[in-house]
Amino acid sequence: MKKVVLAYSGGLDTTFCALHLTKDLGYEVHAAIVNTGGFSSEELKAIEARAKTLGVASFTILDVVDYYYESVIKYLVFGNVLKNATYPLSVSAERIVQAKSLAEYAKSIGAKAVAHGSTGAGNDQVRFDMIFQTIVPDIEIITPIRDLKLSRQEEIEYLKKHGVSMNFEKAAYSINKGIWGTSVGGKETLTSSEYLPEEAWPTQVSEHEPKEIKLTFDQGELKGVNGVTYGNPVDAILKVQELAAPYGIGRDIHVGDTIIGIKGRVGFEAAAPIIIIKAHQLLEKHTLTKWQMFWKNQQAEFYGNHLHEGHYLDPVMRNLESFLASTQEFVSGDVRVLLQPYRFTLLGIHSEHDLMSSKFGSYGEMNKGYTGEDVKGFTRILGNQTAIFHKVNSGND
Amino acid sequence: MKKVVLAYSGGLDTTFCALHLTKDLGYEVHAAIVNTGGFSSEELKAIEARAKTLGVASFTILDVVDYYYESVIKYLVFGNVLKNATYPLSVSAERIVQAKSLAEYAKSIGAKAVAHGSTGAGNDQVRFDMIFQTIVPDIEIITPIRDLKLSRQEEIEYLKKHGVSMNFEKAAYSINKGIWGTSVGGKETLTSSEYLPEEAWPTQVSEHEPKEIKLTFDQGELKGVNGVTYGNPVDAILKVQELAAPYGIGRDIHVGDTIIGIKGRVGFEAAAPIIIIKAHQLLEKHTLTKWQMFWKNQQAEFYGNHLHEGHYLDPVMRNLESFLASTQEFVSGDVRVLLQPYRFTLLGIHSEHDLMSSKFGSYGEMNKGYTGEDVKGFTRILGNQTAIFHKVNSGND
Amino acid sequence: MKKVVLAYSGGLDTTFCALHLTKDLGYEVHAAIVNTGGFSSEELKAIEARAKTLGVASFTILDVVDYYYESVIKYLVFGNVLKNATYPLSVSAERIVQAKSLAEYAKSIGAKAVAHGSTGAGNDQVRFDMIFQTIVPDIEIITPIRDLKLSRQEEIEYLKKHGVSMNFEKAAYSINKGIWGTSVGGKETLTSSEYLPEEAWPTQVSEHEPKEIKLTFDQGELKGVNGVTYGNPVDAILKVQELAAPYGIGRDIHVGDTIIGIKGRVGFEAAAPIIIIKAHQLLEKHTLTKWQMFWKNQQAEFYGNHLHEGHYLDPVMRNLESFLASTQEFVSGDVRVLLQPYRFTLLGIHSEHDLMSSKFGSYGEMNKGYTGEDVKGFTRILGNQTAIFHKVNSGND
Amino acid sequence: MKKVVLAYSGGLDTTFCALHLTKDLGYEVHAAIVNTGGFSSEELKAIEARAKTLGVASFTILDVVDYYYESVIKYLVFGNVLKNATYPLSVSAERIVQAKSLAEYAKSIGAKAVAHGSTGAGNDQVRFDMIFQTIVPDIEIITPIRDLKLSRQEEIEYLKKHGVSMNFEKAAYSINKGIWGTSVGGKETLTSSEYLPEEAWPTQVSEHEPKEIKLTFDQGELKGVNGVTYGNPVDAILKVQELAAPYGIGRDIHVGDTIIGIKGRVGFEAAAPIIIIKAHQLLEKHTLTKWQMFWKNQQAEFYGNHLHEGHYLDPVMRNLESFLASTQEFVSGDVRVLLQPYRFTLLGIHSEHDLMSSKFGSYGEMNKGYTGEDVKGFTRILGNQTAIFHKVNSGND
Repeated sequence: MKKVVLAYSGGLDTTFCALHLTKDLGYEVHAAIVNTGGFSSEELKAIEARAKTLGVASFTILDVVDYYYESVIKYLVFGNVLKNATYPLSVSAERIVQAKSLAEYAKSIGAKAVAHGSTGAGNDQVRFDMIFQTIVPDIEIITPIRDLKLSRQEEIEYLKKHGVSMNFEKAAYSINKGIWGTSVGGKETLTSSEYLPEEAWPTQVSEHEPKEIKLTFDQGELKGVNGVTYGNPVDAILKVQELAAPYGIGRDIHVGDTIIGIKGRVGFEAAAPIIIIKAHQLLEKHTLTKWQMFWKNQQAEFYGNHLHEGHYLDPVMRNLESFLASTQEFVSGDVRVLLQPYRFTLLGIHSEHDLMSSKFGSYGEMNKGYTGEDVKGFTRILGNQTAIFHKVNSGND
Repeated sequence: MKKVVLAYSGGLDTTFCALHLTKDLGYEVHAAIVNTGGFSSEELKAIEARAKTLGVASFTILDVVDYYYESVIKYLVFGNVLKNATYPLSVSAERIVQAKSLAEYAKSIGAKAVAHGSTGAGNDQVRFDMIFQTIVPDIEIITPIRDLKLSRQEEIEYLKKHGVSMNFEKAAYSINKGIWGTSVGGKETLTSSEYLPEEAWPTQVSEHEPKEIKLTFDQGELKGVNGVTYGNPVDAILKVQELAAPYGIGRDIHVGDTIIGIKGRVGFEAAAPIIIIKAHQLLEKHTLTKWQMFWKNQQAEFYGNHLHEGHYLDPVMRNLESFLASTQEFVSGDVRVLLQPYRFTLLGIHSEHDLMSSKFGSYGEMNKGYTGEDVKGFTRILGNQTAIFHKVNSGND
Repeated sequence: MKKVVLAYSGGLDTTFCALHLTKDLGYEVHAAIVNTGGFSSEELKAIEARAKTLGVASFTILDVVDYYYESVIKYLVFGNVLKNATYPLSVSAERIVQAKSLAEYAKSIGAKAVAHGSTGAGNDQVRFDMIFQTIVPDIEIITPIRDLKLSRQEEIEYLKKHGVSMNFEKAAYSINKGIWGTSVGGKETLTSSEYLPEEAWPTQVSEHEPKEIKLTFDQGELKGVNGVTYGNPVDAILKVQELAAPYGIGRDIHVGDTIIGIKGRVGFEAAAPIIIIKAHQLLEKHTLTKWQMFWKNQQAEFYGNHLHEGHYLDPVMRNLESFLASTQEFVSGDVRVLLQPYRFTLLGIHSEHDLMSSKFGSYGEMNKGYTGEDVKGFTRILGNQTAIFHKVNSGND
Repeated sequence: MKKVVLAYSGGLDTTFCALHLTKDLGYEVHAAIVNTGGFSSEELKAIEARAKTLGVASFTILDVVDYYYESVIKYLVFGNVLKNATYPLSVSAERIVQAKSLAEYAKSIGAKAVAHGSTGAGNDQVRFDMIFQTIVPDIEIITPIRDLKLSRQEEIEYLKKHGVSMNFEKAAYSINKGIWGTSVGGKETLTSSEYLPEEAWPTQVSEHEPKEIKLTFDQGELKGVNGVTYGNPVDAILKVQELAAPYGIGRDIHVGDTIIGIKGRVGFEAAAPIIIIKAHQLLEKHTLTKWQMFWKNQQAEFYGNHLHEGHYLDPVMRNLESFLASTQEFVSGDVRVLLQPYRFTLLGIHSEHDLMSSKFGSYGEMNKGYTGEDVKGFTRILGNQTAIFHKVNSGND
């Protein structure tokens, strides 16, 4: 019997796939769920239990949170990547890592096929296929939902017919959770004009008192929170999330270009990602030179877009990561952040690499490094070309 | 007697200059104040009265708010320019326009010199000189404060000696106000770590009830607020400021690279600029293609930096403006914004140019434009080069 | 009977299409050939004669050389666009204009379909379809060669069966000619290692004596050659081609990324395009500021790539064109070029907009604009940030 | 007695400096010459002999060719850096390395000052000062020629007065030679319109027979020529220079922006640099993905400009080098080059990393990787956004 690895999430679509692959297509189904930080152990247990009832040959949890951090999140922080100045790429980044893990797993067990529950209408199908066709080019990709074009109702009937009992009710808001943020879709996000109502947000505001926290970065990576050092940045991220999420910080709606060319809109809450990126960026303003920041921005925007569109394995991504990593050598220090309901304030930083260090003169005060005469000469030369340009072309200007 | 045009603001430094130019250097001083939206008519009257007591030959108010909008602010909005992802360039942009207006004025009255009160320690001296040496290359630039390296106390004594009576007390926070924002400097901004206290902000929070407003853009320009159409975007900006400022929106601290190479930090409040830029950017997310946004961002960052550093007259700025203006053809529509104390939320947009228009399919739902088979083919081709790369280099990877 | 517009070139593939569309699919075929400067009137007559024998309903010549220049070539010159630093996009640019012209023609005669002879293996299918699906989204696209996957031999047999007599012999080298260059493909270009033999080049070297010519540009457009002014830049291009082609100038092999992800290699000869672009670029080095050149290069590379890949109708192309056009205001003057067999030398320029004008000081000689002291101050400030960086981080460096 | 390190070249200016520093300023002069590949051992001996007659305390040869390659040239090749699409930065790159070596030497012997013979009119003063003020900020910089503003004649008289006898005749063309090219300045390069005459070029053409050579690159570095492997790329560069220079290859005139804002023009001959860069670039076209090439070009242009302007120590340069180095992983293989008088032709390449490898399908022929149907789907999706844009805005377009 041919082995297929099924990307299984426990939802309606992948439950359908599990059954369809087994019963209709005769595959030996190896269900695998990739945890990128969105599932609690209780949830995973429940999903496993369900999977077992569907007659799958095996069920595996691929716990990839650390790998997710090391291979993607780290660079999103280095690059201060917020797609369209807003979205931390919560879902996009996750899919890449899920696909890569599934591909490696399929290879390791000698599977002949991989299956995923993507429809033909979204980004995920592209991300999954892009990774699969590169890492496991000889393995078939099966996408029952996309190919059969089934409606939700048809899937439910199929499952009922095969005796599957699960909650078939569609949630008002679809949620996707991972360590780098939670997305929220619902009827408002299908419009261009409406905002999500308070109750749609997965985390409700429960903290109201302002609280100051301190984030400690070491060469661009979050390594400490409130004075506690974490060996693993993943734990530091979780700590920030624990502290900040109850304030309702990091909510927004992302409007963006999908890979397939149409515009899409999705809500998200991402307290830790937003705070960490903004704090990291502030630290960079103090420790990097202006051209370092310029080039980081130019490249990071592309890095985020290319990742979003599933091009993670294009070698240019490794090259951009080399650049980004290289810029972080001195991005170390503490950032003070004030948490308040629905918002946060970056209070300031401490860093021994702070280029604003008063040892070398403060802005607005004369200092040892140069004189007003120097600045006059500087300005004369700096503006020389523009002045010549206007002299040469003055008649025509 | 040789004529000099003095950039006069009514403060200690330019008061000193007025006297020094007249009494010590024997100039016929033509004091001019450039209003970029920061002075009320009462303030201007008081400044004029003071100037008259200093023996200046003339006092002129150059009212350039409209010119400021047309020549600079418009493009800052088109480019969503926030320096270092934060600062609307409130002061930097203003200086350019002030210098340009003063240079034109000096030319018009046949002045032999222009004088400004900049010290040798800041950005402004560079911006003023850059513009002057280009527009009026044959006119001398006089900078008494920079050249004489006087302390505040020495200036005060000089003024007292000459019978000038004014308030010599130094304000705890220095303020610079214009239509595109108000900057705030004080003892905290001289550090890297401290935030401005509540009382330092010029506008104190007086509104607490959430209020929804509607901004209407026409080809990238703000032309309406709450359904009222303004012929002049300047009036629309003032309206937004009037509505939003009492909420304490748009406060932050900018950390950035000064032109002279050291890092500087300055607080600012800019309710209207921040709201307008963010609302405009949201409208663009709905109406521009992804590569339009990519290239806008790449160029706008440079545009802002180059402006900040006084390179406004480099012809590349006109070229970048041509690009930016060209992108705005369809950036028209309404943006809904919710104002709340210290924050605002972009609720959504309405635009007949919305590319998310459901007429052409919604993201996440299958639509008429393409099929799942199309996407399969798309993905296969899109990832072709990366797949080949990995095949070719698989042994070495 | 349903009308179809067939992109007809007179070659084997489109001859097959003409017959197939008429006989097998029952279309009323309106054959159209788009002349982008590659066909002489004799060739066009012969093609028309052939077409008539195939039973087409009409035959039309769309002469678009001027439109080609105005809508594409002009910007390729403004941007000095040479793909991969080599290739003037001779074929890529042409296809865009052909597709656009065909689409407009189809619309104008109320056709229900457009047909082209592209195979499923190349760039052209993408370029044609991209333009058609945007301009005439409701018109069907028919591609018999791609769909039927016929071999050359099968096509020939089909044609013979239907009594078509033409030269069925395959040329050793396939040629595509237009005003912006001629491409040459053959067995060597299918390898990575072999160069085209002398006899493969369409234009054989017949001139051996060095000859100096003078190109006159007006705001970036070639308007004169050897002192003769041309109202239409197309005529000036043809003149340069006439003068330079006999020297064998502008030959090379382009290696590049096809739209479908694989690498391709093609020879080309393009005497006029290469000389014009290089001469134009030299003139820009004298008349533009450094940041104008920087941004032109950044954008022009993308402009060329995006055009190459068929994205001509993405509005970002219009925005980039606005930028490019804006930079050309003062790119006027004469360029001296020496022609020699297989090569040319740019001797120098004359321009009243030359920023190297000795009126404002020559490089390497002290001039009125600034002093050595100015440069000292300039350097001190220019290097200030880097010096501070090294001081701050000296222990760690 | 205070020690000064003098950048000594044996020419008029630095001879003057040696004497002036000793006799007039009372310094203990440590003359040092930095060899970046431009001096033969005979030349160095003659320079040393002259120095000794001037009463210098010591004379040192800093041989930095290998360091020059490792720290700069390597990255110029990785980035295919040709300033303004022409100039390999022969002189600019050299100055950086000279300044850095001199600064390190000054530090090592405890010098209190460094002196160089730059005038106040050129780029070199900025490059030297930029490096010195960063690496040895506490050491004084002395520039007698710039400060005393002496004419050539005055220097000669001073030297004669002090009994120095040397060839005081000014050469018709000033030459600067290093391993990465030789610059040539003369009366023609002071104009915009004239070309250098044949006799001005340091290397006269002595080879007339075409010769094919093979360059072997290993991860972007030239490691072999004609089948001979060189441990040190410097030796491979010298070999290419030996083979190609007699053909008069690599001559051109560079027109560019000097650091001080005016335009300058300089001839150069650089057979090896030009051939190596173009060969390397061709190999990259075969082995890199399209976005790798795009980003390399964007960054390399800035890298070259920033280097040219003396910003070598800005940490962004190290970051860009990390990017460039990262792209070279698979840039390995052979490039066939045909040398002919005044020109060369890139014939083709062989590489096991060639993405054009026929194993994965040839352009223009259908292959196993995809079908015409795939391309149809690809095109439909690829053009989706542009098609929607035109539909949405069709009324207004």
